[in-house]
Amino acid sequence: MQRRFKARLGGLYMQHAIDSLAERVSKKITPSKAEADSEKAFAAKVSAALSKSLPKQCRVCFVGSAARDTGLRGSKDIDLFVSFPRSFSKEEIVAKTFRAARRALKAKWEKHYAEHPYLQAQHGAFRIEVIPCFETSPHEELKSAVDRSPLHMDYLQKRLTETQRRDVRVLKQFLKNAGLYGAELRIQGFSGLLCEYLVLNYRSFKNVVEAAAQWAPPVVVDMEGHYAERRHPFAEPLVVIDAIDKNRNAAAVISETNLYKFIALCRAFRAKPSASFFFGKRKKHPAGEIARALKNRGTAVVVLKIAAPKLVEDILYPQLHKTERALARHLTLQDFRVLGTASFVSGGNAFFVVECESAERPRLKRLRGPPMSSAKAVADFVRAHKGAHRGPYIEGGRVFAERSRAATFLETELKALLRSPDAWGAASHFVKPLKLARTAPPLSLKADALQEFAAYLFRRESWW
Amino acid sequence: MQRRFKARLGGLYMQHAIDSLAERVSKKITPSKAEADSEKAFAAKVSAALSKSLPKQCRVCFVGSAARDTGLRGSKDIDLFVSFPRSFSKEEIVAKTFRAARRALKAKWEKHYAEHPYLQAQHGAFRIEVIPCFETSPHEELKSAVDRSPLHMDYLQKRLTETQRRDVRVLKQFLKNAGLYGAELRIQGFSGLLCEYLVLNYRSFKNVVEAAAQWAPPVVVDMEGHYAERRHPFAEPLVVIDAIDKNRNAAAVISETNLYKFIALCRAFRAKPSASFFFGKRKKHPAGEIARALKNRGTAVVVLKIAAPKLVEDILYPQLHKTERALARHLTLQDFRVLGTASFVSGGNAFFVVECESAERPRLKRLRGPPMSSAKAVADFVRAHKGAHRGPYIEGGRVFAERSRAATFLETELKALLRSPDAWGAASHFVKPLKLARTAPPLSLKADALQEFAAYLFRRESWW
Repeated sequence: MQRRFKARLGGLYMQHAIDSLAERVSKKITPSKAEADSEKAFAAKVSAALSKSLPKQCRVCFVGSAARDTGLRGSKDIDLFVSFPRSFSKEEIVAKTFRAARRALKAKWEKHYAEHPYLQAQHGAFRIEVIPCFETSPHEELKSAVDRSPLHMDYLQKRLTETQRRDVRVLKQFLKNAGLYGAELRIQGFSGLLCEYLVLNYRSFKNVVEAAAQWAPPVVVDMEGHYAERRHPFAEPLVVIDAIDKNRNAAAVISETNLYKFIALCRAFRAKPSASFFFGKRKKHPAGEIARALKNRGTAVVVLKIAAPKLVEDILYPQLHKTERALARHLTLQDFRVLGTASFVSGGNAFFVVECESAERPRLKRLRGPPMSSAKAVADFVRAHKGAHRGPYIEGGRVFAERSRAATFLETELKALLRSPDAWGAASHFVKPLKLARTAPPLSLKADALQEFAAYLFRRESWW
Repeated sequence: MQRRFKARLGGLYMQHAIDSLAERVSKKITPSKAEADSEKAFAAKVSAALSKSLPKQCRVCFVGSAARDTGLRGSKDIDLFVSFPRSFSKEEIVAKTFRAARRALKAKWEKHYAEHPYLQAQHGAFRIEVIPCFETSPHEELKSAVDRSPLHMDYLQKRLTETQRRDVRVLKQFLKNAGLYGAELRIQGFSGLLCEYLVLNYRSFKNVVEAAAQWAPPVVVDMEGHYAERRHPFAEPLVVIDAIDKNRNAAAVISETNLYKFIALCRAFRAKPSASFFFGKRKKHPAGEIARALKNRGTAVVVLKIAAPKLVEDILYPQLHKTERALARHLTLQDFRVLGTASFVSGGNAFFVVECESAERPRLKRLRGPPMSSAKAVADFVRAHKGAHRGPYIEGGRVFAERSRAATFLETELKALLRSPDAWGAASHFVKPLKLARTAPPLSLKADALQEFAAYLFRRESWW
């Protein structure tokens, strides 16, 4: 009894601690009332102007975190969706929206492309986007991926309480500080929408943390109960069924690693809640420390530097990562013992870090031949390896042969690889730049790139 | 048609080639008529003398290859089995047999132990064994493992033709030359009995070779059809159901590697039959060649030399091999990259050969922690590796940490291992000798041991 009572007290205390912490954090990250009001007023003005130049059946919706008071301070994005009846064609809705936008607001409109074109402009402090879409009902088949946004707005605006909106902002800051906020492919983290869904589902930031600390992937959150007994079609480690589109996993982009990072983060925070989980300082590593660490590791580290191909982030990063993986795979196949790799973009350049156990691969290669059951293949293997250093010999159900080769160094092998990057699977836009790659001594990297390199070298979860 | 006709001609020619080769080989390996007659006469004399001193119900059987004319020239083993009715006790049959043997033949009888004691003596050129056993019918439960021998004699003596007996001898020589003859644990090859069963089943040496060249393990030979549709209880890659005991696999001892060696050998022989498959010369490797090969491999080779424990072969070799495997496993766990190991006994010493990619293990160790799902284990791991060189970090569903360690050399590690051989699983009788082990430079080995070492270094199947 005594112990239980204490535990309960501890629990209450913790609950209080997290709540008051959330309140304090919120004060620092919530846009001021003046800020929020001016943003909304501006959005309303542009919306009204847009409506005037659009067919009567159209509806202009101010959506996104600014519209719902779930954004972080400093975010000045205004998303205006123009929804058309489904009888219109894509070409029509784009043309009509563009004309209306240009009439409604004099600005330097830029045309961008998602599934179809939309407009973006910087106007004072605000970045405004005007996006045409089709009217859609929940779970109806979409004519375009952007059609969901007005539905999300309707759904969340009706349901989120004031305190929950605060908790969404707190959760975003919590994730941002850990490098887990953002659904872009560079990050593969939690989108703003996902934060709102999680707070809505678990009722509060504190509850999200409590729940996630106990998650055992695969995790399924199905707020609206769209699927009975988890019979959903999603294979990702975190599945959050989109409340307004049961065919979509709102957490699809989150990698397994990032999901586990979030779980570990929540466990650590729950054990010892503190402001440092929201406003941790990223440590800067001086060059001397980096040099010492490199020496202590006693490994072979090579940094390749190329001109970054000019691509939008959501193409650049997948290609960067694909190239990194292909490089690691190829070096492993070539018998270099790859300890780790990294890649990053900094100052117009892309960098690949390769770390091997040794700068030299083993002199001797043991070749695993075909299974003994394939008489023909075995005969061919035996013929091909008549001159083997050792073998061919039989071990278990296979034939083997060992060849010694001229020792080859990592840098030599890399130079050979860079001559034909398509041969080992570098991503398309990286083939040309890789041919002009240079190896850069780690300590020669410029400030930002050096810190990215340090993030590899001193990789550890910040909350541990 | 044309092609078929040619193939058939080729087949006939090959058949003839193998047959005439078998005949020529047989001439060299078959004991002369005088030899065989004198052996049989001597066996008959001792049998008769034994019978006189034994109870009336006993039967003395001359069994084994000498009795069946399936032995190789130079083999002078005479096996006499004394079978008693099952009403006798083990003690009685041993006592009565020993007394009778000592009366029947004045010789320096030595007591040996199988499942129960038997006697062995050298008498002139002959090595004679007198073994007590119980009368048994085929497939009846055995009172002792040796009880089968008289049944084997009955079964085979009735069935093998003259030509088949010749082919058994030829098959034995074929296997002997390839190092595959003998069921002892040092060899794990084909027993004499198995050779007789194979020739009987396939009708001839040529047919055995033809069949084995096509074998796709698991292979089952069930001459007497004891099991319907291969529903036998044996798990070995080659199963030859003992004709007189369906509960025994006469090929149980053959390792997977040796079975595939036999298959490969038969394929090679069938493709190009020649006398070299029976009388190949084992190449002697001069020290200079060994030194050159070691240098070319560029690996780290260490030879450990110990006093061989005094054990019968069938205990010595399993313990030797167990110790070799344990050593390899332990070094691998300690992050040495083991390329290969070997062990052998020569001149009263036992030797272990260890070959690693490098004399030094990697400086950095990447520790794979517990799965992220085990919150407690992860917390412990994180605490234990606060001071890690890199990490703890999350990758996929696990936590990792990297530690750098003082570089350790293979020889240093081996010296540490030899201080407590029981700790890493050396076999019981090897623990003490290993504590006194010395490392021996390969080229310091004496002639025979050096050639055993060369067999490792130049390992290859001789017929390729």
